[in-house]
Amino acid sequence: MENTITDSIKITPITTSKLDKVDFDNLSFGKTFTDHMFECDFKDGVWQTPQIKPYGPLTIDPSARVFHYGQAVFEGMKAFKDDKGDVFLFRPKDNFNRINISANRLAIPSFPEQYFMEGLKQLLKIDEKWIKSGAGNSLYIRPFVIATQACVSAAEANEYKFMIICSPAQAYYVGDVSVLIAEKYSRSANGGVGYAKAAGNYAAQFYPTNLAKKEGYQQVIWTDADTHEYMEEAGTMNIFFRINDTLLTAPISDRILDGITRKSLLEIAEKEGIATEVRPIKVNEIVKAAEDGGLKEMFGAGTAAVISPIKAFGYKGNHYEIKRPEKAFASHLKKALMDIQYNLTEDPYGWRVKL
Amino acid sequence: MENTITDSIKITPITTSKLDKVDFDNLSFGKTFTDHMFECDFKDGVWQTPQIKPYGPLTIDPSARVFHYGQAVFEGMKAFKDDKGDVFLFRPKDNFNRINISANRLAIPSFPEQYFMEGLKQLLKIDEKWIKSGAGNSLYIRPFVIATQACVSAAEANEYKFMIICSPAQAYYVGDVSVLIAEKYSRSANGGVGYAKAAGNYAAQFYPTNLAKKEGYQQVIWTDADTHEYMEEAGTMNIFFRINDTLLTAPISDRILDGITRKSLLEIAEKEGIATEVRPIKVNEIVKAAEDGGLKEMFGAGTAAVISPIKAFGYKGNHYEIKRPEKAFASHLKKALMDIQYNLTEDPYGWRVKL
Repeated sequence: MENTITDSIKITPITTSKLDKVDFDNLSFGKTFTDHMFECDFKDGVWQTPQIKPYGPLTIDPSARVFHYGQAVFEGMKAFKDDKGDVFLFRPKDNFNRINISANRLAIPSFPEQYFMEGLKQLLKIDEKWIKSGAGNSLYIRPFVIATQACVSAAEANEYKFMIICSPAQAYYVGDVSVLIAEKYSRSANGGVGYAKAAGNYAAQFYPTNLAKKEGYQQVIWTDADTHEYMEEAGTMNIFFRINDTLLTAPISDRILDGITRKSLLEIAEKEGIATEVRPIKVNEIVKAAEDGGLKEMFGAGTAAVISPIKAFGYKGNHYEIKRPEKAFASHLKKALMDIQYNLTEDPYGWRVKL
Repeated sequence: MENTITDSIKITPITTSKLDKVDFDNLSFGKTFTDHMFECDFKDGVWQTPQIKPYGPLTIDPSARVFHYGQAVFEGMKAFKDDKGDVFLFRPKDNFNRINISANRLAIPSFPEQYFMEGLKQLLKIDEKWIKSGAGNSLYIRPFVIATQACVSAAEANEYKFMIICSPAQAYYVGDVSVLIAEKYSRSANGGVGYAKAAGNYAAQFYPTNLAKKEGYQQVIWTDADTHEYMEEAGTMNIFFRINDTLLTAPISDRILDGITRKSLLEIAEKEGIATEVRPIKVNEIVKAAEDGGLKEMFGAGTAAVISPIKAFGYKGNHYEIKRPEKAFASHLKKALMDIQYNLTEDPYGWRVKL
């Protein structure tokens, strides 16, 4: 028998659930949390006994390195419930692998797979009533690690906290968005941390996004920092284009996140015979395709929104509208992916993991 | 009369000081904190009544945006005590201006100047006994802002905490260091946040620095992310070179921090008739100067260490030693700057601010 850490998770259940007080028809994304949270501290060179305990505030020194040096990485994943009440995760191993890839780049110690998987499962079991069935409903799961060591010298910490918190979710974005293609600001550098889900990558995007909002756009399409000639990401999502009947996306790199939704959509598209191209995509190519009518679709892809269709983009003072065709890849691929996630169809890929 | 906020800072003093328990001859940088801290919350669109209260842990929700999206900026500054017991700050207005420049880039609301200056002064007065006179002794001051709003959707927060914490300090670095010039990793992108003291900039440096340490170097010299042909920063400091009798440093940009020590050293050098050049510096130029003997000095400059002399550098597998001349710019400029900071000389620049 393999050793498991199942029994070693220390569980302190809540006395009274908050579940009754939540209006599940009017959830604001990321603001409501379930009754419990998973917590595991790194100290003296090892991850200590994990705990599941009532969701509540942390007590943390103001000199904790996360506040000063941004040593923090996270993941975004979801749990889904089908009509029979069974709960499913989607490619959880990929999230586990990626949080350690991110952690490694930020000089944060790797978290053990068994702790991650067992912690996740036991947390979801204890808070299972928070997962609602029905289209679009899910439990958004946020694993994250922060440097807790109390010290303001600029070096990596020797104490960390790994946590999983969960938030019931409906849809993330509402409606199609207009986006502005970045000409000045950028998201990541060659040799930087763009491929990691590092906390600091996100804070850096808010100001340029606010500037875009002032011009009537909801998101920024990030281009490469060197030349601003190549498409990289869509806000906090990966970017896809459809030119005529070909689906295009940028290759992953040290600047671009290896999105789980991104690679799943690519696999589904390929299996369904949709032509795909993973290659550097020039802004000018997209502008030209928008002008000559070849650009049929443009969308962001990520865990929170699954697919976020883009209806228009701005570039160098010009505005380009995209007329989405009736049979859009976006809606077709989104349905195909969600049908797998919600156990509404077969899963030939082996992505669905039953709790 | 001008309105002041002096009286509106709410002060809750400690009951028992920790001062007696501190060994001021054996301080580890950034690990010991004074009795009090300054705290001011941003809520409902305004900065609330500032407080000075006993140093202690924060109570903060695990979904606070700082943990997930890295909205955090900071400053580093110092207070000095002369032999008469008078306390001085060094260019505090510059730190105030810069924390708001950083905050603006990270979509964090500006902090009011009066709150910053009065908070700082009152905090230093109440903890004045923690500032020791004598060469090298100082009180390291860490103002910082973090996003406290409890929400895991990727957008800027609407609640923040501005704090000032203080740590008694001796010297930061010991001895001359060897550095590795970056060929793969990088610190910041064009259009990014490199010029800001953003928390995430620091976490990104630890892993490449650890790789350099494995090769026997203590720090990384960052080069531009596009080509790695130009010198940018030295670890968490600005970088200076002396070729023959000219002092060189890279110009500030959106990738390079506008260091207060950097610009002060430049001003002192210019006033003293040292030839200075602020211009892009090619790695190859420095390698060539090291080979032909023209490279006399290389050092980092920053608040914590003032000047950190570099004795050797590695580049493309080669190792270059720098023989520091007897009359080094580094030690001369460091003394000139510290004499002003410690009130040991006139201050023709108007940098010293008496508490």
